Order: sequence, then structure tokens, then C-alpha cells
Amino acid sequence: MQTERIPYRDGELVLTGHLIRPSGAPRAAIAVFPTIKNPTPAVEAKARALAEAGYLPMICDFYGAQPVDIDEAYSWANTLTEDPAIYRTRLHAALAALLEAAPGLPMAAIGFCMGGQAVLELARDGADLALVASFHGLLETKAPAHPGAVKARILVCHGDADPLAPRAHVLAFWEEMDRAGADWHFHSYAGVKHSFTNPDTPAGNPALAYDASADRQSWAALLGLLGEVIT
Amino acid sequence: MQTERIPYRDGELVLTGHLIRPSGAPRAAIAVFPTIKNPTPAVEAKARALAEAGYLPMICDFYGAQPVDIDEAYSWANTLTEDPAIYRTRLHAALAALLEAAPGLPMAAIGFCMGGQAVLELARDGADLALVASFHGLLETKAPAHPGAVKARILVCHGDADPLAPRAHVLAFWEEMDRAGADWHFHSYAGVKHSFTNPDTPAGNPALAYDASADRQSWAALLGLLGEVIT
Repeated sequence: MQTERIPYRDGELVLTGHLIRPSGAPRAAIAVFPTIKNPTPAVEAKARALAEAGYLPMICDFYGAQPVDIDEAYSWANTLTEDPAIYRTRLHAALAALLEAAPGLPMAAIGFCMGGQAVLELARDGADLALVASFHGLLETKAPAHPGAVKARILVCHGDADPLAPRAHVLAFWEEMDRAGADWHFHSYAGVKHSFTNPDTPAGNPALAYDASADRQSWAALLGLLGEVIT
Repeated sequence: MQTERIPYRDGELVLTGHLIRPSGAPRAAIAVFPTIKNPTPAVEAKARALAEAGYLPMICDFYGAQPVDIDEAYSWANTLTEDPAIYRTRLHAALAALLEAAPGLPMAAIGFCMGGQAVLELARDGADLALVASFHGLLETKAPAHPGAVKARILVCHGDADPLAPRAHVLAFWEEMDRAGADWHFHSYAGVKHSFTNPDTPAGNPALAYDASADRQSWAALLGLLGEVIT
């Protein structure tokens, strides 16, 4: 299973996607949005799992470079996310690159942490995706979805003990999605924190923890819904 | 696949379980609690699906008889559920019958509508079950779980548009389960109503509707979690 570098652009900025081809004909193309740290081994492992399941994943690039530490990542992320138009343009650039690399295939998008927020932003913006799936993604937005805007089905896999997305955000998200008329499945896991899909999550930050059960069950939920929407 | 009648008692009342043996050695025994109508073809189909997946299901009996219509069902159900002690005794009688029919096997319980409430009542009461799974079950209780009481893992598969379990009940349930320290997964499906697992749901009641996607995804979630907790 080989990774192909896919250069793409957002204006002057050069970004790099990483495409992983499955062994047979792919069932769909899947944009994989990483965490605030940009691609990491944990996200690459998820992309490989998609390729093993017969999909054509491309790991997307938020910044065009790798941040040297979490402070730099936050700084870059804030610059990107503070303006929904800038943020969404960056995200759509990845979808366009994937569409060019895999013309004619149905498309979905998944993401982790900031990437979870990213795929929800794409859904809010009416991206033509069969499914978006957010894993421990941020649920807030600066630009709530308009009625009828959301075309993608939505799966949110959420740690109920994630301090970055408390229950108030969950309720606000449901209400936003109701007004938009979106079709969502929301899975909440008791006691589960941010970053629950990442076995490399370091100890010491009380907001973060890997959770093997939530990781396993949320991944199964993704594959189940993908199997339903990709026909 | 044959159904075996398992007579059991709650005091003087004679009840009848229906056991369905899988073709090989069963992985676990599963008490299947029906809707307020007591066993119906839809519930029997779910029990058969469990047997096909290698489990030993027993369809449980709420009343010792079949109600002639929904009014009688409500009347019988109310008599049972208005006192948690009476209700839980009836439910434990089913578990005891299943344990006797299948000694030494790990046990789980699932239920639909009133049966969903029933399995949550068993969890609140500390029943020794590896998993309870509620499908469009009622979330309220007259006897909230005490801290540390819940031993079973819990899966709730819930229609977000179910008027019998509105969002206020969802939040109250989460808070009750938090206080109890329970380990739950809660799946909520947008626009999905009560009775979503039952393809025989009649038209004409705006509270009820079959939903093929929620049915499929919630069943996959059950099998996924069973596979994890039954080792």
C-alpha cells in the first residue's frame, strides 16, 4: 500500500495530499482531515484502514507545512479558522484535489479533532459529499448552516467527557442541524475524552485520552454508514 | 431454527419465554424484552437475528398473556410499571428463567420501546448483565440508579424525533447515568421516531415510523458492542 503525494493549491499556498490506493477498484474517495497537528501517524493509520476497506483515502493538508510544536499548530489553526470563508476555501481545495485525482467516484470526508470540525464546516457549506464523519471534532461554528444547505449525511462520534465540546455545544449543534434540516447520527460515549481515536495520545493532559472501545465502535459506525451511503 | 417454550413464574403468575437456539454453541444468552404489545413478529425477527449471529436469545413475557388491543396493553403496562419494585421483579424473573435454561453463559439484555425501558430498569437495579441495549426505549424512571449500582454496559439507540423520549429526557438520562457512574454509548438519529426498528409499524400515528437506516445502524452497533463485551 503506497502513499502518493498529491500537490494542490489554495491561492499561492502549496499544499500536499497523501493518497493511498486500495488493492482493487476503489468504492469511493474519502478526504481525511487530520488534527490540529496536521498529518500524524495516528491519522495515517486511519487512512490506511480506509484503503484496506476498499476506499481511496487522501490525507489532507491544513497548512502546507508541519508545525514544529502544538503552540505553532494552534497559531496556524487560529489564523485559518477565525474566518469561515478562508477556512472553507482551504478545505474545498482539498476536495477539489481529491476529485481531480479520483474523477467519477462518490466522495465522503472524515476528520479528527480540528479535522472533525473541518468536515462539519464542509457539510454546513453544502459540499457534495455522501457522508461526513467527525471524530472528537469541535461542534461550534462561526457560520451556522442555512436551512437546506447540508447535502451530506452526518456522523458525529463524540466523547461525552470531551471538554472541547461540552453538552451545551452538543445541544446547540443539534439545534443548528435541525434548522438546517440535516440528516445526522450522533454517537456519544460516556466518560470518553478528546482524542479518543488516537492510541498515541500522550498522558498528562486531562482533556485527552485514548479509548479503545470508543475507537473501535466509532470506526465500525463509520464503515457501516459508508456501506449504506456508497452504493 | 426452533422456538422452545420456557415457562417461568413471577409469584403466582405463569409467564412464557421463547428460546431460540443457534446452530452452534451459543456465545451468550440474551434476554429480549418486547414492546408494550408483548411479543410480536418484529421482535421475534430480532431474536432470530441474534440466534443467526450465534447468540441464544429468549423472548421475554411481560404479562403472561397477549393483550387484545393497544388499550389493554397500556392498561397492563401501567399496572406493571407504576411500581418499580413490581416491574423489576417481573423482569428479573425472565433473567432467572434464561439463566436456568442456559447456565454458565454470559448474559445480556435488549429491548424495544417498553422493553428498552425494561432493560434500563434492570441496569439501574444492578442486574449482572454484560450489556443492555435499548432501542427506542423510554428513558425515564421512577427509581433512578444509585451511584455504583449499574454493572452492565449500556447502549441506547434513540430516535431524536421520538416524542416519547424528548431531548429533556435524554439530558436527564445522561445526568442520572453520570451520577450512577455508568458506562454508556448513546446513539441519536435525526428525524427518527419511536418504533424505528419495526418494519410493521402502522401508518397514521405521527409518533411512530420505521426507519431502515436507523434500524440497520443500531443493529450493527448492538452486534459490535456484543462482540466486544462477550469474550
